[in-house]
Amino acid sequence: MPRPIALLTDFGYQDAYAGIMKGVIAGRCPAAPLIDITHGIPPQDVMGGAMVLRSAVPYFPADSVFLAVVDPGVGGPRKPICIRSGTRLFVGPDNGLLWLAASSCGEPEAFHLNRPEHWLPAVSSTFHGRDLFAPAAAALSAGLEPGALGDPLSNPVRISIPPVIRNPDGLLGEVIYVDGYGNAVTNLQPDDLGTGGGPYRFKVADRFIFGPANCYSTVQAGEPTISLGSWGYFEVAIRDGDAALLLGLQRASPVSVTFPADRAPV
Amino acid sequence: MPRPIALLTDFGYQDAYAGIMKGVIAGRCPAAPLIDITHGIPPQDVMGGAMVLRSAVPYFPADSVFLAVVDPGVGGPRKPICIRSGTRLFVGPDNGLLWLAASSCGEPEAFHLNRPEHWLPAVSSTFHGRDLFAPAAAALSAGLEPGALGDPLSNPVRISIPPVIRNPDGLLGEVIYVDGYGNAVTNLQPDDLGTGGGPYRFKVADRFIFGPANCYSTVQAGEPTISLGSWGYFEVAIRDGDAALLLGLQRASPVSVTFPADRAPV
Amino acid sequence: MPRPIALLTDFGYQDAYAGIMKGVIAGRCPAAPLIDITHGIPPQDVMGGAMVLRSAVPYFPADSVFLAVVDPGVGGPRKPICIRSGTRLFVGPDNGLLWLAASSCGEPEAFHLNRPEHWLPAVSSTFHGRDLFAPAAAALSAGLEPGALGDPLSNPVRISIPPVIRNPDGLLGEVIYVDGYGNAVTNLQPDDLGTGGGPYRFKVADRFIFGPANCYSTVQAGEPTISLGSWGYFEVAIRDGDAALLLGLQRASPVSVTFPADRAPV
Repeated sequence: MPRPIALLTDFGYQDAYAGIMKGVIAGRCPAAPLIDITHGIPPQDVMGGAMVLRSAVPYFPADSVFLAVVDPGVGGPRKPICIRSGTRLFVGPDNGLLWLAASSCGEPEAFHLNRPEHWLPAVSSTFHGRDLFAPAAAALSAGLEPGALGDPLSNPVRISIPPVIRNPDGLLGEVIYVDGYGNAVTNLQPDDLGTGGGPYRFKVADRFIFGPANCYSTVQAGEPTISLGSWGYFEVAIRDGDAALLLGLQRASPVSVTFPADRAPV
Repeated sequence: MPRPIALLTDFGYQDAYAGIMKGVIAGRCPAAPLIDITHGIPPQDVMGGAMVLRSAVPYFPADSVFLAVVDPGVGGPRKPICIRSGTRLFVGPDNGLLWLAASSCGEPEAFHLNRPEHWLPAVSSTFHGRDLFAPAAAALSAGLEPGALGDPLSNPVRISIPPVIRNPDGLLGEVIYVDGYGNAVTNLQPDDLGTGGGPYRFKVADRFIFGPANCYSTVQAGEPTISLGSWGYFEVAIRDGDAALLLGLQRASPVSVTFPADRAPV
Repeated sequence: MPRPIALLTDFGYQDAYAGIMKGVIAGRCPAAPLIDITHGIPPQDVMGGAMVLRSAVPYFPADSVFLAVVDPGVGGPRKPICIRSGTRLFVGPDNGLLWLAASSCGEPEAFHLNRPEHWLPAVSSTFHGRDLFAPAAAALSAGLEPGALGDPLSNPVRISIPPVIRNPDGLLGEVIYVDGYGNAVTNLQPDDLGTGGGPYRFKVADRFIFGPANCYSTVQAGEPTISLGSWGYFEVAIRDGDAALLLGLQRASPVSVTFPADRAPV
């Protein structure tokens, strides 16, 4: 039984690029189950792709191959790689895209996809998703070991989610992702708030929001909330509305928390 | 052979939400065929989702599980449910989303998904598609009976398509859905017009259109038509154009029909 | 083992139309592997759909059925057809959509899908994708010969990519497709430039670009390049930007090449 292949790209939905990758896989490993994570990552947004991939990986079968392509440096010096992390395999460019996910589920072990016998016969300079990454994912799905695709790579590109800054009065966080509903995911997690339980006073775009709320529907339509989102981070949302649009939020917008003296985290 | 699972959501195509539901299913029922109906329902548009689902159901295999999530009340008091209707099964929130489809293909029998052993171990307050509905759909695809997932529910939320108003001079209908081409689906059906055969005089946005036409291409480019659409309702279209945009139509826009005295329906 | 079915339409992602075609296929040939090429062809853009299909076909399994629907003339006199070309099969409207692809991979042999026993029992005038083309694709996937679906058709509609115009000073080409990144695919190919190797002086929107470049990343962010794209044609791109938007390019925008006297192609 081939490993399932989960795909994430910034190829969008107008063109055939994502479909072509699936065609290549179907020709090389016809029984591989193909599952689209998304092809709607904003063009060339490596950090956004890395975070969305990180949020999805825990919910896929543990033997999945994750084929991810957000690749503004295609054709240049950046390397095509595979990472093995626990039972999971990741294929894509060495620009950090795979790192958040791969480092979240085991000890990442990287390989440089430098064996041309596993590529398509002709390799373009603009579409390695088709010419290198799809054939590699198909081979891994069919049971090949990553080491057969290329040499070990000791120092793959690492990226990280911006850390929360802690000061005596509270926490300084930020927006790390805005989703398609306009919900703004922050880098703040329950552990950052300690064991006080709240409510806490969040400051978002010059506005105070008390939270966390239990769900979006605890407030009136049009009102903002902060609640624990499905990524495990606190999210700013507006009930029946687009929080990012209405509050002017984008990645890196500050979101802070003030602790009253008697509720500082321990 | 597992039942096929057909998915409809308002999750859009930017994020991983729809993909994550498929990952959860693949982990629990790997052989379940997954078919996307659409993930492009406008955000939180329960009525739109209900109508699109209703239009799709007759064309899917009769043993399908329909997994539908348009869920502005997620995390609040609305119940997660399953409906059995004839051989078909429906999974989603109890907000009417499933009702038009489920009541169109048999006698709906509802169940409250209140058995935590069939949920993911941790349930968020914002993503029941992942935590409750996908596991339920996977279990049903694998052969579980709906009654094993929860208790019977006697009074699920019902919604209905707005009725056509009939008066001595004709019919007063309305737009119930605008599709991605800008075609405006009305609530008018052939039976409403009786057996006269037409042509009838439709009034749409202060403009008269004689119809029904046999197809879009009976008029010149840029001209509006009314013809029987693929949902079985009359649709306003503009050849090679976007009727909703050009005529200013949206849901609930009036579309009326005037009968000449000698052509009133019988 | 059924043939894989690859789907390309302009149905978009808001509605259920593409999903409904897959539901029809799943009911008639449940084991047929379904692969979306794209459903994002701009509405009613037959030429765009034809070129995208042409670019995708070589990368799909050689026994694939290509089900393509961009069909502004649906319900009118245009014929529903199947084309066999080598081992590949194509199903869709007879408006040129299938032609570029079908004529690129063998000697095209066309059939008129005029046997109602292979249609859905009720055929609408607006959705032949569901009522005629999906059942035909399912039958072909299951092993039926094209000749069983209808009579041979001697003269299917042919379209072609606009030719490059050659004059003593150089070449006059044009943009044939703008992709979702804003890259502008031209009709210029390496053979047109001869064996000189370049660099050549391209003129795009009153701007000179020397090329071809080896890849997008040879220039600074915001700078335009011309490089050999994944379709096998030269493409105008802007690193980390949208070339069509920033340079004002659309289909048929001129792209010319001037040869210095000593570098004219031989």
